[in-house]
Amino acid sequence: MSFSNSDTTSLDAENLDSIYGKGAYKYKSLNDKNTFVFSQSKPFDLIELEQLLQSVGWSRRPIRRVKKALDNSLLKVGVWRHDPKFPRLVGFARCTGDGFLEVTIWDVAIHPVYQGFGLGKQLMTYVLSQLKKMKISKATLFADAGVLEFYKSQGWVLEPKGKKCAFWYAN
Amino acid sequence: MSFSNSDTTSLDAENLDSIYGKGAYKYKSLNDKNTFVFSQSKPFDLIELEQLLQSVGWSRRPIRRVKKALDNSLLKVGVWRHDPKFPRLVGFARCTGDGFLEVTIWDVAIHPVYQGFGLGKQLMTYVLSQLKKMKISKATLFADAGVLEFYKSQGWVLEPKGKKCAFWYAN
Repeated sequence: MSFSNSDTTSLDAENLDSIYGKGAYKYKSLNDKNTFVFSQSKPFDLIELEQLLQSVGWSRRPIRRVKKALDNSLLKVGVWRHDPKFPRLVGFARCTGDGFLEVTIWDVAIHPVYQGFGLGKQLMTYVLSQLKKMKISKATLFADAGVLEFYKSQGWVLEPKGKKCAFWYAN
Repeated sequence: MSFSNSDTTSLDAENLDSIYGKGAYKYKSLNDKNTFVFSQSKPFDLIELEQLLQSVGWSRRPIRRVKKALDNSLLKVGVWRHDPKFPRLVGFARCTGDGFLEVTIWDVAIHPVYQGFGLGKQLMTYVLSQLKKMKISKATLFADAGVLEFYKSQGWVLEPKGKKCAFWYAN
C-alpha cells in the first residue's frame, strides 16, 4: 500500500477539482506524455493569456479591456498542461452572446508547441458540450483562413446559405 | 398664435422623449410622408417584433427565449413609424458581445413596406454611433447573401483576411 505519490503528473478526481475547479475535464493525449485539463473556473493570469493569444499570431490588446471582456463572456475555457504546482495555460476559448438565441465563440487558440495532439478538437468538443448544457442549439464563429478545414471536419457549416462575415472598424 | 396642433405627425423634442424614451432620434425620409423614430428605450411588444422579423423571411423563434435573449443584449434598437398614439415597429437591430472587445449585430430588419426609404442605412448608422459612444472600435455581423452590397457600401469589410463565418447546429 502506497501512502505517497511520487508521480507528479497523476491527477485524481479530488485533485482535479481542487486545482482546476468544479467541472474540470482531464485529457491524456495519446501522442504526448503530458496530461491536459479543460477548466471553466480556474482563474486566468491575463498576461499569460495574452501571451498565449500572441503566440498564435494575434495582436496585442489592452489588458484592462481584456479583463472586462472576459468578465462579460458567457463561457471561458482554459486548457492547462497539468502540473500540481505550476499548471501552464496552453489553450483557450471563450463565448459571448445572449445565452439563448445567439452565441459566438472567440479567441480559440492552442499554443504552437502543443498543437498536433488533438487539443484543439478536444477544446471545441468541450465548449460545445457546455453550450448544449445551456440548451443552446446554434453557435457561430469567424474562422481564420488557415483553420477552415479544422472547423469543417468537426461539423461546422461554412457560410450557410451564402452568408458572409462582415467586420466594421471605427475610423 | 396657435394653441392647438392638429398635425398628429408633428413631433417636438419633448414628445419624442416622452413617447420613445431618452436618446431617441427622429428621421424624416425624403421619399415618404412618415416620420420615423429610432429608440433604444421604448419597450417592444415581442409578438410585434417577431412578426417584423418574420416579414423579412426569418423563422419563428420561441417567444420566451427571445425575451431572455433581448434581456441579455448589449443594445436593442427599434425603428418606429411615428404616431402619437400607436407607434408601429417597422425596423429592428440588436447587439450582443462583451462590450469591450467583441460586439456582434443581429436581427437587422426593416419591414418590406418601409424598405427603400433609407431606413436600413440610417438604422446601421444609429447602431454604430451608439457603439462608438461605448468606445467600441470593431463590430461584426453575419450578412445574408442578399445584403452583402448593402453592408459593403457602408464601409463594412467582407471576409477580412479570408475569414469565413461558421455555424454549428446542435444535432
